[in-house]
Amino acid sequence: MIMIGRAAAKLFNEKGYLETSIADIASAVTMSKGGIFHYFPTKNEILYFILSNYMDLVVEGLEEELKKIDNGFSRIQFIISRHIELYNKNTAEAKGLLHEAHNLPAKHFKIVAEKEKRYFQIVARSLSDLLGDSIPKDKLTAITFALFGMCNWIYSWYDPKGSLTPDDLAEVIYSIFSKGVVSYPPSKITAPESEVSDARF
Amino acid sequence: MIMIGRAAAKLFNEKGYLETSIADIASAVTMSKGGIFHYFPTKNEILYFILSNYMDLVVEGLEEELKKIDNGFSRIQFIISRHIELYNKNTAEAKGLLHEAHNLPAKHFKIVAEKEKRYFQIVARSLSDLLGDSIPKDKLTAITFALFGMCNWIYSWYDPKGSLTPDDLAEVIYSIFSKGVVSYPPSKITAPESEVSDARF
Repeated sequence: MIMIGRAAAKLFNEKGYLETSIADIASAVTMSKGGIFHYFPTKNEILYFILSNYMDLVVEGLEEELKKIDNGFSRIQFIISRHIELYNKNTAEAKGLLHEAHNLPAKHFKIVAEKEKRYFQIVARSLSDLLGDSIPKDKLTAITFALFGMCNWIYSWYDPKGSLTPDDLAEVIYSIFSKGVVSYPPSKITAPESEVSDARF
Repeated sequence: MIMIGRAAAKLFNEKGYLETSIADIASAVTMSKGGIFHYFPTKNEILYFILSNYMDLVVEGLEEELKKIDNGFSRIQFIISRHIELYNKNTAEAKGLLHEAHNLPAKHFKIVAEKEKRYFQIVARSLSDLLGDSIPKDKLTAITFALFGMCNWIYSWYDPKGSLTPDDLAEVIYSIFSKGVVSYPPSKITAPESEVSDARF
């Protein structure tokens, strides 16, 4: 099942979920369509299997790991590094979550969304532990989603094979989130030509 | 044409680009299909019109506005507020850019992507003006996309009708980006129950 899920996740990511057929998936894992149907009665169930498993990977064990870390900032650093590592090791699944989850039937979408909410709550709790309870809830929500925004947006531009390693990337996001760009050394020198990126903004 | 574009952007956002027909668009603006075809020979050209116009709105005049601002941090604050304001005033068009641009034919996609690249370059230049040229280009790119990530991710969770106004949201993003969460008052009090959000993480 895991083999089918991985192959399907890659196809969904390359061709789109709607554009991928069971025959495509069967061909990718050199099985018959009947073989696939033995494990998954519908294509929807394959998508659900992929996204649900990915969210389990994201959520399971996180609270226990965080409890082992005393320092509030170190907990945030751990969350960022772990998020980026999971993304890089499961890029097709993570992108599927961002782009294809709306194709799930309502019942399955709800289960995946509950897991996402659980993840949100764990991260928001770590932030409120760090920042204290004087922050209004709506601002805590905005701060938490600002962090998710920096981490999730990497799907649109980041190439782990480029010069910036996943560890470098996690460090940049942690530095900005914890201390802001003021933590970067300022300079009076006129700025250089900025890098031209092919990625979408 | 603008009226057709606005109505089409809303439909693309609600139903999806592929799922929206010219008949749906014609009905939304109480025109005949022939009337729509008079302005736009294909549905693709409507999408291109919407996304290209939105990027023009984002890019045009930005450099001139930035030149009027002396302080580097104020320029970043201006960029964030302007980005969020444009998003809130043109939510359907902005979401279309994030979700539907891949449906454009290559020739048109390229033109829209060039405009996005122009926007990226202007923002990256403002950041390199602020941070100096000692920052490696790959880190400058990551910092710029961290900022875009915080600003763009709002599509997944932010409701401008909620308690957090667009100005509040811009302020949170600017505070984090410029000074980090250390700028929020820390507290020794045990954290409260964090807010439960219905939004996707």
